[in-house]
Amino acid sequence: MASDNNKPLVAYCGKPGCNAEAAAIGYFRENAKTLPVDSFQEIFQKVTEGTVDYGMVPIENSLGGSVYQNYDNFRNYPDVFISGAIAIKISYCLLAVKGAKTEDIKKVYSHPQALLQTSRFLGNHKDWQQIEAYNTSGAALFVSETGSKENAAVASEINASIYNLDILARGIEDDPNNYTRFVVITKERKTVDDAHMASFMFKAKHEPGSLYKILGVLNDFGTNLTRLESRPIPGRPWEYQFYADVDLKSISGQPDDYVKKIIEKLKEKAEEVRLLGVYSEVGR
Amino acid sequence: MASDNNKPLVAYCGKPGCNAEAAAIGYFRENAKTLPVDSFQEIFQKVTEGTVDYGMVPIENSLGGSVYQNYDNFRNYPDVFISGAIAIKISYCLLAVKGAKTEDIKKVYSHPQALLQTSRFLGNHKDWQQIEAYNTSGAALFVSETGSKENAAVASEINASIYNLDILARGIEDDPNNYTRFVVITKERKTVDDAHMASFMFKAKHEPGSLYKILGVLNDFGTNLTRLESRPIPGRPWEYQFYADVDLKSISGQPDDYVKKIIEKLKEKAEEVRLLGVYSEVGR
Repeated sequence: MASDNNKPLVAYCGKPGCNAEAAAIGYFRENAKTLPVDSFQEIFQKVTEGTVDYGMVPIENSLGGSVYQNYDNFRNYPDVFISGAIAIKISYCLLAVKGAKTEDIKKVYSHPQALLQTSRFLGNHKDWQQIEAYNTSGAALFVSETGSKENAAVASEINASIYNLDILARGIEDDPNNYTRFVVITKERKTVDDAHMASFMFKAKHEPGSLYKILGVLNDFGTNLTRLESRPIPGRPWEYQFYADVDLKSISGQPDDYVKKIIEKLKEKAEEVRLLGVYSEVGR
Repeated sequence: MASDNNKPLVAYCGKPGCNAEAAAIGYFRENAKTLPVDSFQEIFQKVTEGTVDYGMVPIENSLGGSVYQNYDNFRNYPDVFISGAIAIKISYCLLAVKGAKTEDIKKVYSHPQALLQTSRFLGNHKDWQQIEAYNTSGAALFVSETGSKENAAVASEINASIYNLDILARGIEDDPNNYTRFVVITKERKTVDDAHMASFMFKAKHEPGSLYKILGVLNDFGTNLTRLESRPIPGRPWEYQFYADVDLKSISGQPDDYVKKIIEKLKEKAEEVRLLGVYSEVGR
């Protein structure tokens, strides 16, 4: 494997201090090393090649909705599995260089979603110019590098210590119910005994009632559908790739064997059924 | 109403020549006047206020997927209905000022999606700088205004005549199966006798099997579910607002009366059921 010190290597998209790194640390604790990369696609690529052991990819935010690129990445990378998941709370601070005061600030940098999610706070400072950055931690790094008291970043608290910044304000998000759900991807499917979630991909047959029949299989097996997502299939207008997450808490027996039976039945009702994983989610 | 000459006024987002204007003209023919506005939200706002009669909003592209802002706009504007729909084929040209040749071009302007959807063609001109514009017609207008033979725009053919540009290349999209589906929104729900589509919004109860039971109602009534979309509900993590489109072609009787019966049954299984419209779709 790609790691040394016997610790697996986990790729995430962003810079140290970003929410994806926090998810990786929250999930693996001290049992993995993290590797920042520049795109979600690069994570899927590295997992497929085996140059990293795991990837940590955001799949859904409770305010913004699904991260559609990553649903599509599962379609584009057929050899990738989900081995775990974690939902983390997103909270933002206003960060600036040491000694800066709120009245010094003239420009505020962050990812467009983070600027949007702190719009009530930023609305009280209408004279601040809002500048979009590629990600929140990149904004914090940039503010640190400029050394100017006129610049601030909207980013999570941990960036203050990483980039030697002061925290001018905490918890500035409009809605405290802000969570992002990440999934752990890996090349070889691992069986987990205490798994309580399963994820599938499938295509519905192009005939009336097909999706209803597919969900009927999941229902008959006593699983609880917690998420159903669909994405267009390029070149096949108005046909869809579906993604389903089910909760296995109420089933009896070994989850992996149980899911095998579900898959068999699903294949009778759906096309191109693919098991993404049978896994546990931290904090759910 | 807001129109003069007895012609209804239809708001769309973009500039003359954009696909949304083409959808409005395709749907209403010569029976309406069009009004360009700057955002989707402004369309919903103007329809709600009654300052326009209709709005033409994109809801889904066959390559890019749902236009999620407009699903959310239906939630934010409760008094808006769908009275019709139209799917139009998206095709792109390379446009430049009169007399310009392909070898003159150094910069190409367009909406990021249009640049992405013509990436094979643009990949043959790696020396061209790609510059993102707010929309395709705005890019064509900008190129026209610069008057420079070094600039080109990726936009639909009609922009050539509107902005007095030459067509350097036609049909440059990677995938010819590129369609965008628009819906016509209006303030008062209109009954259409030859309607063959109905759209609903609802929330699934937070209990196992709830979505399956809801789709069971649509199935029992003999409708064909053609689209199911879900969006997060702000402040209620992991709960979803659902949107369903059904095809009514196989039902017997007056569509409006039939849909009333569906709604009654749906209300037993789902929360906050809202009928968005019973309507016809042009070209489907």
